[in-house]
Amino acid sequence: MRIAIDAMGGDNAPECNVEGALSAAAEWQDTQLVLVGDEARLLPLLKNMPSNVTVRHAGEVIEADEEPVRAVRRKKDSSMVVAGRMVREGEADAMISSGNTGALMTTGLLIVGRMEGIERPALAPMIPTLDDVGVLALDLGANMDAKPQHLAQYALMGSIYRNKVHGIAKPRVGLLNVGTEPGKGNELTKEAYPLLENVPGIHFIGNVEARDVLTGNCDVLVCDGFAGNILLKSLEGTAGAIFSLLKEQFSKSLKTKLGAAMLMPELRSLKGKMDYKEHGGAPLLGLGGLVVKGHGSSDGNAVKNAVRQARIALQADLVPSISKEISGK
Amino acid sequence: MRIAIDAMGGDNAPECNVEGALSAAAEWQDTQLVLVGDEARLLPLLKNMPSNVTVRHAGEVIEADEEPVRAVRRKKDSSMVVAGRMVREGEADAMISSGNTGALMTTGLLIVGRMEGIERPALAPMIPTLDDVGVLALDLGANMDAKPQHLAQYALMGSIYRNKVHGIAKPRVGLLNVGTEPGKGNELTKEAYPLLENVPGIHFIGNVEARDVLTGNCDVLVCDGFAGNILLKSLEGTAGAIFSLLKEQFSKSLKTKLGAAMLMPELRSLKGKMDYKEHGGAPLLGLGGLVVKGHGSSDGNAVKNAVRQARIALQADLVPSISKEISGK
Repeated sequence: MRIAIDAMGGDNAPECNVEGALSAAAEWQDTQLVLVGDEARLLPLLKNMPSNVTVRHAGEVIEADEEPVRAVRRKKDSSMVVAGRMVREGEADAMISSGNTGALMTTGLLIVGRMEGIERPALAPMIPTLDDVGVLALDLGANMDAKPQHLAQYALMGSIYRNKVHGIAKPRVGLLNVGTEPGKGNELTKEAYPLLENVPGIHFIGNVEARDVLTGNCDVLVCDGFAGNILLKSLEGTAGAIFSLLKEQFSKSLKTKLGAAMLMPELRSLKGKMDYKEHGGAPLLGLGGLVVKGHGSSDGNAVKNAVRQARIALQADLVPSISKEISGK
Repeated sequence: MRIAIDAMGGDNAPECNVEGALSAAAEWQDTQLVLVGDEARLLPLLKNMPSNVTVRHAGEVIEADEEPVRAVRRKKDSSMVVAGRMVREGEADAMISSGNTGALMTTGLLIVGRMEGIERPALAPMIPTLDDVGVLALDLGANMDAKPQHLAQYALMGSIYRNKVHGIAKPRVGLLNVGTEPGKGNELTKEAYPLLENVPGIHFIGNVEARDVLTGNCDVLVCDGFAGNILLKSLEGTAGAIFSLLKEQFSKSLKTKLGAAMLMPELRSLKGKMDYKEHGGAPLLGLGGLVVKGHGSSDGNAVKNAVRQARIALQADLVPSISKEISGK
């Protein structure tokens, strides 16, 4: 299989992508990795290029702060758009990018193309949970507004992903809501609830409150992109704030420094639980090909994890499986 | 001034309410506190009743899990509804309840009554921030869906509250959103942004991301009730989860127990920062009278804090001030 990596995407690009590709290439000899980006910057980083890594030159870069739709339309030779085109034209089986999220979504829609029967593709990252299993949450920002029928499609796509990629036989699907009772919520979630009860082949367990998400009581969490963003960002923000406060408090005196030193392995393990880089990339579900988004701050290890994920999804026929369920073809 | 307390509302009722009232009565001799509820349960708790505490009998109780509108309509002699009627009829200047939130909101709307010119009253709790100042967030669940003009009214009411009750000269108003740039968001926040820029007399500072709320970069945070609930619950959930994990990790061995013991004061102080009970009650803004909601798990101290808050709001003419700004009267 062949995986295109947008080598210029991400805060630590291109180094993180080169490092991740080299590491993945060494582990999985059956996988061809194509680093898409500026040759002049990539080749010096690739002194000893393994046989399953190649470079595809792309002269432009979409920056993190660019307006997505305009950037994708104008920068036809950007590393992201070239990688997207490779997927559309069958030159690559999947693409990975840690660049501008909005632009990647737009690349998915305009370059790779929507899957037939899907109205809104969804971004589906794993949110870490206390049991270390994690929950696949979608949509986490591909579309800010959603209709009830979109949430039903998210539920189906998320279920198939958890089943095919993570091997969960009967993924539990929850609806992010303000209370656990069926009648709770805003107009969207109240209307989505009965639809979710009737999606064939999924195991809908009802509403899930934001405070319970971390306990891992479902495998797939369905929400509109706006609510999902609020959930994920407040989780990240709270965890980050608590750890920085702990650090500050623990360096107050010799006594607290000593106490903290004794707890260091435990504190590190706890911080690891809340670390997004450990959880690999997020698939964009509902496209005609496989697109995986890495975290903007991805390092080489995160890029390698995204490759691992893409490999599993390809081996499990993820995209054709979703297509079959959605269109019945 | 005279403040009615729904003595039967809250997980720890009626004890927490009696304890809070007694403590408030001792501190503020100028304040009359009326405990509204079942005499047979209240009087035994009030062996030495101070002269500024009285009991108003109410024979019914609205339970935590009752359907709000039906409960308020049917239980006309419930402690919550009786307290609301006292406010409407001028027998009390304010009411405090730690009971069923939905029922309290309904009591506000149907019994106390909306302020002229306000379409949607809003629940406005303080969210704790790292600088210990806190941010007033509204709406936090009174109405799940909101229109852009409702967010503009929330901004104005929140600003007046922070100014009158907390003495902030020029409260910074932020809009909860998925990015800081003006064009970001869902349909609601995109439309609300230009309205907020044009609300006279408020200091609108733009969009605020969920992950930045804890840093205290604004004094008033405006959002619809659904998004606000997701924000608050994920903040509570994450903080709670991290503290329980810390506890678990820190009791793993003798070494970690010792380390944790050395850090106990610092850990306690950190937990205190994230504790809702410390932050008193949440006003329901946009009603014809003052209604303060206590946290369901309020103890006596939380009820006393809610009394403190109600006193300040009454002394500062909060409700007439909002009415003047909204209707120009």
